[in-house]
Amino acid sequence: MSEAMTNLKVRLREVQDLRQAEAILYWDMATYLPSEAGAERGRQMSLLSRLAHEQFTADTTGELLAAAEAAAESPEDQAVVRITRRDFDRASCLPAAFVERATAHYSTLHGRWAKARPTADFAAVADGLARSLDLAREESSYFPGAAHVMDPLIAGSDYGFTAATVRRVFAELRAELTPLVEAVCSQAPADASCLHQHYPRAAQLAFGETVAGAFGYDFGRGRQDLTHHPFMIRLGAHDVRITTRVDENFLAEALFSTWHETGHALYEQGIDPTLDGTPLLDGASSAVHESQSRLWENLVSRSRGFWEWAYPLLQADFPKQLGGVSLDTFYRAINAVERGLIRVEADELTYNLHVMIRFDLECALLEGSLAVRDLPEAWHARYQSDLGLRAPDDRDGVMQDVHWYGGRIGGCFQGYTLGNIMSAQFYQAACAAVPGIPAGISRGEFAPLHTWLREHLYHAGRRRDPLDLLRDATGSDLDHAPYVRYLRDKFTALYGL
Amino acid sequence: MSEAMTNLKVRLREVQDLRQAEAILYWDMATYLPSEAGAERGRQMSLLSRLAHEQFTADTTGELLAAAEAAAESPEDQAVVRITRRDFDRASCLPAAFVERATAHYSTLHGRWAKARPTADFAAVADGLARSLDLAREESSYFPGAAHVMDPLIAGSDYGFTAATVRRVFAELRAELTPLVEAVCSQAPADASCLHQHYPRAAQLAFGETVAGAFGYDFGRGRQDLTHHPFMIRLGAHDVRITTRVDENFLAEALFSTWHETGHALYEQGIDPTLDGTPLLDGASSAVHESQSRLWENLVSRSRGFWEWAYPLLQADFPKQLGGVSLDTFYRAINAVERGLIRVEADELTYNLHVMIRFDLECALLEGSLAVRDLPEAWHARYQSDLGLRAPDDRDGVMQDVHWYGGRIGGCFQGYTLGNIMSAQFYQAACAAVPGIPAGISRGEFAPLHTWLREHLYHAGRRRDPLDLLRDATGSDLDHAPYVRYLRDKFTALYGL
Repeated sequence: MSEAMTNLKVRLREVQDLRQAEAILYWDMATYLPSEAGAERGRQMSLLSRLAHEQFTADTTGELLAAAEAAAESPEDQAVVRITRRDFDRASCLPAAFVERATAHYSTLHGRWAKARPTADFAAVADGLARSLDLAREESSYFPGAAHVMDPLIAGSDYGFTAATVRRVFAELRAELTPLVEAVCSQAPADASCLHQHYPRAAQLAFGETVAGAFGYDFGRGRQDLTHHPFMIRLGAHDVRITTRVDENFLAEALFSTWHETGHALYEQGIDPTLDGTPLLDGASSAVHESQSRLWENLVSRSRGFWEWAYPLLQADFPKQLGGVSLDTFYRAINAVERGLIRVEADELTYNLHVMIRFDLECALLEGSLAVRDLPEAWHARYQSDLGLRAPDDRDGVMQDVHWYGGRIGGCFQGYTLGNIMSAQFYQAACAAVPGIPAGISRGEFAPLHTWLREHLYHAGRRRDPLDLLRDATGSDLDHAPYVRYLRDKFTALYGL
Repeated sequence: MSEAMTNLKVRLREVQDLRQAEAILYWDMATYLPSEAGAERGRQMSLLSRLAHEQFTADTTGELLAAAEAAAESPEDQAVVRITRRDFDRASCLPAAFVERATAHYSTLHGRWAKARPTADFAAVADGLARSLDLAREESSYFPGAAHVMDPLIAGSDYGFTAATVRRVFAELRAELTPLVEAVCSQAPADASCLHQHYPRAAQLAFGETVAGAFGYDFGRGRQDLTHHPFMIRLGAHDVRITTRVDENFLAEALFSTWHETGHALYEQGIDPTLDGTPLLDGASSAVHESQSRLWENLVSRSRGFWEWAYPLLQADFPKQLGGVSLDTFYRAINAVERGLIRVEADELTYNLHVMIRFDLECALLEGSLAVRDLPEAWHARYQSDLGLRAPDDRDGVMQDVHWYGGRIGGCFQGYTLGNIMSAQFYQAACAAVPGIPAGISRGEFAPLHTWLREHLYHAGRRRDPLDLLRDATGSDLDHAPYVRYLRDKFTALYGL
């Protein structure tokens, strides 16, 4: 490696370590922080965030990068400077003072939201949200030349997409989903009562972790803890953690949350460890990441084949609750479709409708066609028209998701549905390449799937751009057809359409 | 506040936040870190440590400090600049490269020790220990003019003491302790079998935490977790945590460890919160800190009065194990005196002999009169002469304590015994000022003691130097008489001497 490259890497590793240190502080905040330490923890995290930003955008980093660009010869080094340049240019557009101002505001608003949400007190967060909107517009303005105010914000999480492309994809998908939802919801609802029994916490956690381990999650390089909002987080190349929450009176909560986060974690744990210390040690994009959480949560864990293996084990752990429940009944219960108010509780079929509402509202807010004071009512109106429901108040309406209150407005929701679409493309490609995958799953053998995903997807880290990665792995551009086919086949069979 | 003072405080707060961030990484490492993440965690911590050191010793900090010194008028500001100057001059003596080199070495050696200790493989750590000794001498050499190589190292943790003063104090205390140990150990040993029964983990933890709460530990600003080596750590002004370990077949392990760390935590939680962001938010010294852990662990929690209140509660939690055991039997069991090999398992009477051995060996190593290769045998020789025992191997010999393997050699052991001496001075002064304290303890009322300690000791943080604080609170210089009297009275009664 050239000296210029070595010098750049020393700097990049320090930036990475500062960000990982901040991640450790965040993980602790979300799991174990004493109740009165919130303010000081926010301050500590904001310092680390600022130092990482300052170090990364420092003039000396720019000089190190330029020298490394001139010297990079191997494909490995060229990949490092290519992505570092992209991140550097992007980060350098944002003044450090702006980043600090925005971070401090999001942290304050998050605290206010957490307090106001239980009483559905939107008035307590409206001003803060308006300020967040100003900050999002300001952030966008640092990237001149964008066709849409949201484009630079989308590019930060889903490189390769714009507001226009997302809109088109969403419109096409919606046209397929709406009649399918309509058809399923006109049938008698599935009986999910077997899930609503008492399932002791420890046994739920143990079962979830056993399966996560079978998927390939390496507990020597990770762990699971309890939190309010489940997440996956990388604290180091060898420390990729997941969190979950347990409802002792509803079995589906902890299990599918665990396997969703396991999907994210398998991705992170599967990245080529030689990328450690560089910006390449990361997922390709928000959508590609979500494709993996959804693949393991839905295409695997909500499939009938998976439960042919897993259900006898689950019954053995919960004989009193499930001993008399057939596999078919259980399979229908975990795939019950119902129009609901809450995104994170939504079934596979209606989930994307929730995402599309949020994306459209984000766009309207950023474009200025919707004011924050009118947001709660706009939310209700869209839920009425798209899902036929109206939340009794703003707690389960516009205040239900943390995203707009804990960070930027804009660019945070599209990845969920893009990821769903990609999940079916990746799974279809894996099964085409290794036809034994579905049969293996129904015997509890996940290595064939895991191995294919690691080789064609996880290992690359950010070496390939998201849409190139998709094309390389599946031979296709973004295409909702496999996803729609998967949903149609599955729910047609389930509901006897 | 003057502008100069404000500017200095901004800098000091950042240094504090970096150190607290490092502490959070340490806490996580000692409690929840996945097994394969040790190396990267060491690297992350060492970066934060270096950044804190660089920030604190930067020229700009020196300039901010000088300006603040010129401007400081209030006693509060004067205290901040006085202690900051002391720390700054001390830290500035150490080259950043030295600090980084030493930190990295200690971290590596710690890992090697943890692996080598179970098999008593001293050879695996001997070279590392020799290098640690070189580093300790090098560290000392950055403070020219010291009478003894250990003096600068002691000054770092126990300001106001030197190798000579510690030696004199230890010699005097030893002269009192040796005949007392001799007399007690010539009696029939106490029956401690009631402690060696099965006590379920969760119930032990719950009891320990209930009492910690009764002492005054604020769980809204702290928490307890499990670890291998119990410790107390401050992660923020409102986040002071303790850790413990549980032996399900020995009741005394978790309880007294919890209450020991609670003593440390009460001190930290009691510091004037307006000192947050300055170097004054800290204990006065290692010895003063230890005086509080020992006061709550021993003078309170091993007293007969305390158990008059606590024992019925403990019996109610463990009726099968303790229902038929009298208070007297239990009280004798938790105060059983026996010459042993392990410092952390030692009783109140023999504990200081363990400390003195370590202090003397540290001195000999640093003076050059003892070589690392001869250390294991020197250890055995001292245990033979002082305690009449020889460890079967180095695991329970020279490899038993983490101190020399996880950090500097020198200045780390004297505080334990100095703290024991002070604990009796503080307790005597508290009882003289508030005569109802002992009677209150036997009714489970700890507020009178806690309040007196907070007012006369905790609240000051580092505003007063350790020996001034001792003098203010007790009206006396360091004096082993109250401690010896306490031990003599207690064990004379217990063993009917």
